[in-house]
Amino acid sequence: MPRSNRPNTYERIIDASLKLFNKEGERTISTNHIAAHMGISPGNLYYHFRNKDEIIVQLFKRYSNALLAYLQNTPLPVSIGEARDYLAGVYQILWNYRFLFSDINSLLQRSVVLLGEHNEFTRAKVAPLLVALLAKLDENGVIETDEVAREELALNLWLITKYWFDFDSSLGHTRSESVKYRGIRQSLTLIRPYVRADKRAEFQAMMQELSDAIG
Amino acid sequence: MPRSNRPNTYERIIDASLKLFNKEGERTISTNHIAAHMGISPGNLYYHFRNKDEIIVQLFKRYSNALLAYLQNTPLPVSIGEARDYLAGVYQILWNYRFLFSDINSLLQRSVVLLGEHNEFTRAKVAPLLVALLAKLDENGVIETDEVAREELALNLWLITKYWFDFDSSLGHTRSESVKYRGIRQSLTLIRPYVRADKRAEFQAMMQELSDAIG
Repeated sequence: MPRSNRPNTYERIIDASLKLFNKEGERTISTNHIAAHMGISPGNLYYHFRNKDEIIVQLFKRYSNALLAYLQNTPLPVSIGEARDYLAGVYQILWNYRFLFSDINSLLQRSVVLLGEHNEFTRAKVAPLLVALLAKLDENGVIETDEVAREELALNLWLITKYWFDFDSSLGHTRSESVKYRGIRQSLTLIRPYVRADKRAEFQAMMQELSDAIG
Repeated sequence: MPRSNRPNTYERIIDASLKLFNKEGERTISTNHIAAHMGISPGNLYYHFRNKDEIIVQLFKRYSNALLAYLQNTPLPVSIGEARDYLAGVYQILWNYRFLFSDINSLLQRSVVLLGEHNEFTRAKVAPLLVALLAKLDENGVIETDEVAREELALNLWLITKYWFDFDSSLGHTRSESVKYRGIRQSLTLIRPYVRADKRAEFQAMMQELSDAIG
């Protein structure tokens, strides 16, 4: 097998960490756990990462890049169904990196590097893309909003989406992929009051479909 | 000084812990810090509380009781200004116990007792009271909602309010009391699309006032 086809140790450490953090929670997993899981020595791991926070920073970068690439490359939704699918794509990325959203504040407190990246990411990149998404839905006659409403809605959409996994588990739901569908539905409730009269039946049918899927 | 007028050691430990947790973060404060701050021996503290989680459970009960008493005893708002003041009261209670909302998920993961209380509290008590509040605003001609909208709005209001301190600090704001006013404003944005046409100017003036106060 040519070397270029095999992920190197650096990448394999990041992959293994993501898997373990998502499964067991970041707090309970040490660098020793990660090394043991991979069958490498702690020294080998330390050769690549001085500590766990350095791995987390790389995972945060991966997550940021994945979300940003999605937001930049996915065509903006022009219908209610497309808006749902668009949101589903966002929730899928968050799900892939769900450990980041389980204890995010304490992660951020620990790492200035992470915090800096995160502020910049949300403020400068996510919010304007969400505003553009809402403008597109408005333009296509799906919702009726003014500029103030779009700004407010964008922030609320991001807040609900960001904290959904945490909120959902605080309601006592066990963590399974259905958390995504409950999240998509909850995010869409923010849009409901802005849906134009001639689109409301379609919107309602879609919400019902999501509720049925959740069970 | 008669004994009954002096808070006993048990209560004083809880008071001191709240002060230190809010100021320094719960994670960085040990029971030894608390005892040292109070000028008592660690043994004296352990006589009352076996560990820090037992103190946190008592603080969570205090917070729950304070919020519940507020929601049950404060007359439901019948105007836009009263709705803002009502929310301000909620944010004040959250502010008083703000350490609970900085790292809430990891607190909850650590304590099954806490988790049980918390689920019950949100599900059984807060949500119905918020739905009643919205019904009152509807009844008094402030907003126009159906039952579905009120259920969705109640959950979104609680979610935004609960995570506001965390979200606000993730945007890089330093923690000061102005976080409350930004939170009140953000919570009210959820209500905006439901405000009746003849109340919109009043609503807009109030939002502008809040923005001016935040600066």
